[in-house]
Amino acid sequence: MIKPWKILESKQTFRDQYLGVRTDRCVREDGHIVPTYHVIEQTPWVTVFPLTDEGKIVLIREYRHAAQKILTAVPGGVSDPGESDWEAVGRRELAEETGYEAREMRLIGTCYPNPAVQDNELHFFLALGCTPTAGQSLDPNEEIEVFEVPYEDFLAYEQLDVQHALHAAGLFYLERYFLKHPELRPAAS
Amino acid sequence: MIKPWKILESKQTFRDQYLGVRTDRCVREDGHIVPTYHVIEQTPWVTVFPLTDEGKIVLIREYRHAAQKILTAVPGGVSDPGESDWEAVGRRELAEETGYEAREMRLIGTCYPNPAVQDNELHFFLALGCTPTAGQSLDPNEEIEVFEVPYEDFLAYEQLDVQHALHAAGLFYLERYFLKHPELRPAAS
Repeated sequence: MIKPWKILESKQTFRDQYLGVRTDRCVREDGHIVPTYHVIEQTPWVTVFPLTDEGKIVLIREYRHAAQKILTAVPGGVSDPGESDWEAVGRRELAEETGYEAREMRLIGTCYPNPAVQDNELHFFLALGCTPTAGQSLDPNEEIEVFEVPYEDFLAYEQLDVQHALHAAGLFYLERYFLKHPELRPAAS
Repeated sequence: MIKPWKILESKQTFRDQYLGVRTDRCVREDGHIVPTYHVIEQTPWVTVFPLTDEGKIVLIREYRHAAQKILTAVPGGVSDPGESDWEAVGRRELAEETGYEAREMRLIGTCYPNPAVQDNELHFFLALGCTPTAGQSLDPNEEIEVFEVPYEDFLAYEQLDVQHALHAAGLFYLERYFLKHPELRPAAS
């Protein structure tokens, strides 16, 4: 029976506003020592699936420099230190990245982006009744295109073939949520 | 129209066998300079969804120290530097973590685990006809429980509610693959 490890010693090896690295020395239940385990400490993330009342999903296109690819994705971002209202974070990221506002936000799932390496959680929201209400409000290094496609076309979209894993994870939760709440699934156009 | 950035300067800020950090100075198409962008360089990852001919999925339970949680997941791991046969990596990780062997492996999707931060891809395989053929072969810090559950029970499993995002991403590809190949979907028991 697997048991959690006990932390024997822990030191902060790196720290800035959004990212820390903590290095732990741990012992397992069976006495085995794990001498050095690095944990990346990050604030929670929020990802939003914005739908319009016309059955469209609001998507973004953005250059992702680590992958060196322009990828289609949904809006989302990082919470500020101390924040715990994930719906508010989701609404803010939706507004900043797309200029859209939602009538209603529903939490559809929570996961660990990478539980072996990072300590943070990622919360997924379905944003219902989205409409454009303002312009984008981007960080200096952000450059984001916004467009709408019918949700059904999006699911058949070939660009989903190679994409952002955390976006695919959200789609799993979203499809699962629609199975329980079929009245919310956008109708075929 | 979004364009890729051009790298003006690039230096290796950290490097070991599996992980590097590269720090780039970039320029956008519109002349805007991105002075410092850290890219985590990692070898590609492979995640496997192992099914038995009895319609069960082979799962693992493992303590994930960053999240400080015991999580249910599917087998997978990191390729060695220079490897490019992802099926072989998947078969190796399946054997090492579970002691199971597959009759057939199918690539069901590829994604970027985190394209803003890491440069690597993650390949998902469906492993068909899995049977236990040997014991596990674990790294010293690994401690992994192996068990089988009917695939349909697994999808309804409440532990999917908060889990490994990269596992949820794979389930999105797997469910999508089953829509195209319904003959492969495990029958309800």
